[in-house]
Amino acid sequence: MYQVDLNADLGESFGSYTIGLDSEVTKHVSSANIACGWHAGDPMVLDATLALAKERGIAVGAHPGYPDLMGFGRRNMACSPDEIKNYVTYQLGAFAAFAKVHGLEIQHVKAHGAMYNTAGKDLKQALAITRAVHDFDPNICLLALAGSKMVDAAAELGMKCASEFFADRGYEEDGSLVARTKEGAMISDENQAIERVIRVVREGKVRAVTGNDIAVRCDSVCVHGDNAHAVAFVKTIRERLTAEGIEVCPFGAFV
Amino acid sequence: MYQVDLNADLGESFGSYTIGLDSEVTKHVSSANIACGWHAGDPMVLDATLALAKERGIAVGAHPGYPDLMGFGRRNMACSPDEIKNYVTYQLGAFAAFAKVHGLEIQHVKAHGAMYNTAGKDLKQALAITRAVHDFDPNICLLALAGSKMVDAAAELGMKCASEFFADRGYEEDGSLVARTKEGAMISDENQAIERVIRVVREGKVRAVTGNDIAVRCDSVCVHGDNAHAVAFVKTIRERLTAEGIEVCPFGAFV
Amino acid sequence: MYQVDLNADLGESFGSYTIGLDSEVTKHVSSANIACGWHAGDPMVLDATLALAKERGIAVGAHPGYPDLMGFGRRNMACSPDEIKNYVTYQLGAFAAFAKVHGLEIQHVKAHGAMYNTAGKDLKQALAITRAVHDFDPNICLLALAGSKMVDAAAELGMKCASEFFADRGYEEDGSLVARTKEGAMISDENQAIERVIRVVREGKVRAVTGNDIAVRCDSVCVHGDNAHAVAFVKTIRERLTAEGIEVCPFGAFV
Amino acid sequence: MYQVDLNADLGESFGSYTIGLDSEVTKHVSSANIACGWHAGDPMVLDATLALAKERGIAVGAHPGYPDLMGFGRRNMACSPDEIKNYVTYQLGAFAAFAKVHGLEIQHVKAHGAMYNTAGKDLKQALAITRAVHDFDPNICLLALAGSKMVDAAAELGMKCASEFFADRGYEEDGSLVARTKEGAMISDENQAIERVIRVVREGKVRAVTGNDIAVRCDSVCVHGDNAHAVAFVKTIRERLTAEGIEVCPFGAFV
Repeated sequence: MYQVDLNADLGESFGSYTIGLDSEVTKHVSSANIACGWHAGDPMVLDATLALAKERGIAVGAHPGYPDLMGFGRRNMACSPDEIKNYVTYQLGAFAAFAKVHGLEIQHVKAHGAMYNTAGKDLKQALAITRAVHDFDPNICLLALAGSKMVDAAAELGMKCASEFFADRGYEEDGSLVARTKEGAMISDENQAIERVIRVVREGKVRAVTGNDIAVRCDSVCVHGDNAHAVAFVKTIRERLTAEGIEVCPFGAFV
Repeated sequence: MYQVDLNADLGESFGSYTIGLDSEVTKHVSSANIACGWHAGDPMVLDATLALAKERGIAVGAHPGYPDLMGFGRRNMACSPDEIKNYVTYQLGAFAAFAKVHGLEIQHVKAHGAMYNTAGKDLKQALAITRAVHDFDPNICLLALAGSKMVDAAAELGMKCASEFFADRGYEEDGSLVARTKEGAMISDENQAIERVIRVVREGKVRAVTGNDIAVRCDSVCVHGDNAHAVAFVKTIRERLTAEGIEVCPFGAFV
Repeated sequence: MYQVDLNADLGESFGSYTIGLDSEVTKHVSSANIACGWHAGDPMVLDATLALAKERGIAVGAHPGYPDLMGFGRRNMACSPDEIKNYVTYQLGAFAAFAKVHGLEIQHVKAHGAMYNTAGKDLKQALAITRAVHDFDPNICLLALAGSKMVDAAAELGMKCASEFFADRGYEEDGSLVARTKEGAMISDENQAIERVIRVVREGKVRAVTGNDIAVRCDSVCVHGDNAHAVAFVKTIRERLTAEGIEVCPFGAFV
Repeated sequence: MYQVDLNADLGESFGSYTIGLDSEVTKHVSSANIACGWHAGDPMVLDATLALAKERGIAVGAHPGYPDLMGFGRRNMACSPDEIKNYVTYQLGAFAAFAKVHGLEIQHVKAHGAMYNTAGKDLKQALAITRAVHDFDPNICLLALAGSKMVDAAAELGMKCASEFFADRGYEEDGSLVARTKEGAMISDENQAIERVIRVVREGKVRAVTGNDIAVRCDSVCVHGDNAHAVAFVKTIRERLTAEGIEVCPFGAFV
């Protein structure tokens, strides 16, 4: 039987500021990447988000980012590998305390935003993140862009790594995402996006922007819970996957 | 044989900013309270400080504070008990990750600055801190002002608590510290300060500002490593205690 | 002819986080208190908010707060008067730069949240804020709770000060607001709230929670733009005031 | 008569953290670049630093940086030109308020650290900084690396710009600094460094790392006040320049 995970970023609210329909999207995803208080999130939000994840029975992971709340962790920062390693250790530890208090296992770590993008292309940054997770707990799984340097880094340190697929993004023939500035970057047709997910799960293939099929691994599909439309899409994709006989479950069950 | 601990605040540097002669004072103290990145400290500093503590063979504890780097955690903030609990969980978790990576046990948690002072007088705040530590790991010891509400809170939740004595501060008859605005607040004579420590360790008594003796428990003496003079005092007090047959060791060994 | 100002807090968004229906509420208020980047707001938001205020033709003021983004400036912080003075100077200067770039005059300064409340009761804090504004530009008007220490501080330094009235709050006989924990703290009936505003503008009187009338000055009514309901109330109160022959205009025109 | 300015970064302390021997170095420099509270500095430090600069009679400028206190503004951040413009407006405004309160004119703006380096090579970033200064006050002078994109940006917007020379850095033939990773990056011999300054002031020439002379403009020499050795060097260079008949004075007097 085919299996796939649906993951979304959660716990991105901060103080009096709210982002994300966490209470809704957690009804449909199987894994949550939870902000750790640097690019988003705070201790009150961490506590509430882990309580919610527990109530919904979904798997949880830490979602560390750059120390840039004003930029929501989306701007690249020229941090050294040593800084990245310690920044991830710090955020993972803070997250782990709340997971422990709520009696939850840590399924994974997924870097956020610019840290995710940089680590996908730069092996040193990828190794810094992976080393931080490894030294904290070698049983935690990484969640990374399929085919990226993070996957290589995980392999190098003997860590498990789940491959992430983007339903709404075009792929180059080399397996990288089509840059947002180029044509074909976004798959705006929702039905087509869902068909691509079903195919990548069953066949491990996706049609690249060039028109040729390429092999892509998909353990988890990245979805969003920012607004009502995004949540409706998550509900739909889950229903379609289930109807197609594909089980939606945390990737920790099969990676 | 008499035993007592000497504790100092460490890891208070931040980014390019340095505070404290950590490398020196760790030669003389037996326990370190390590800042967790909110009122002071950062992930690079945490990493370096735990490596140093391990090298010196001293016991370590988390030293959480208010989210006020600009005020060094010394200004009271009207946080709710729920906020305090989650703030301590967050900082303790971050600290714990570095302790784990360095293979160190967490001996204790000591609140910093204004959080320490408030929790010493306000049972709700004291319980919030104690609850956070308890839920994370009930075997961690608290370190608190002798006779304070933190001691009561630890007892209420069945947690171990070491009592802290201030060598350079005068005491009221009720066991509280003489307010800094009043005469007798500071014991400026170093020899007298050391004599007070020796006596409180041996007899559990100190001469209050009124002239009468009072009972005070002393498991650990708070010392400082901010400047060369302070470090010299720590070296002297340790030598004097040792010469008097009092063993200086982490309080985790005897509390 | 009677005149009154309607003021609302604006520019409270931060980075990717949005608070407030600024674009809507600015259609109805006459003055905006604009966050300065400490408890809320950031440079991008300041720029956009001043552009919006200019487009709407409303008067603007700086809205400085404590350095506590996580608590939205609503938690008291034990800052010294010297700290408060310099914090206000800093925020007022940052605000003033954007006002200058957009060609707008600074009508006023209103402290935010816990800083507003503290300064309303503590003359030293009130003088610290007033002194900061005075030394920057003695022609800027203060906006403060009617009858509060801020009004006294402004008088002491020879500064103009507009008195603020809360439409939805009950008043004690001494002119202070009924504490939120007590009965009569909130005026939930919107029609009654509007009637109180009309009366206080015309007669300078309001019925206190005791049932007796008291004298209260009202140059400006504090309204909110957080949600659609709040904005609808602002629209209604403006229409009612206008229908009653009371002109809604920036208080700078008549204070 | 030859004239040159000596400039140093000041006001980099933060809260309880001290950096720089400001009280000493201000005896020898003619201009101060004062941190604005983002990468370093805070309102208390700004106030004290401007009071000190006034007492010493030296010229002052704003020294804005990236929002990265932990990295002291030395790490590149991928901010957009719009963000840079507003970040500079914000910091310049905050600085300007303290300058106004102390009755000081703003001589200049010099970007800090990574912002300085990026703007030196990237015309868009350089224009963003220059535009912010221009829109705030077109009479403020920029201080920038000789021959850099900041000089071009200032010319493009019709702003004055002083050219900065580094006494202790090697130069490539194109006028850029030798990268720190390459041989010849640093001029460690202090006498040689001073001779280079004297020559560049008199002849507008410096010997490049290749051995050939190149033309370099020098309105101001960047010096440091971080430690006693650095301050001693500043004292020496000032004495040598004076002995050579070169007047040390704020560049605002001759640019």
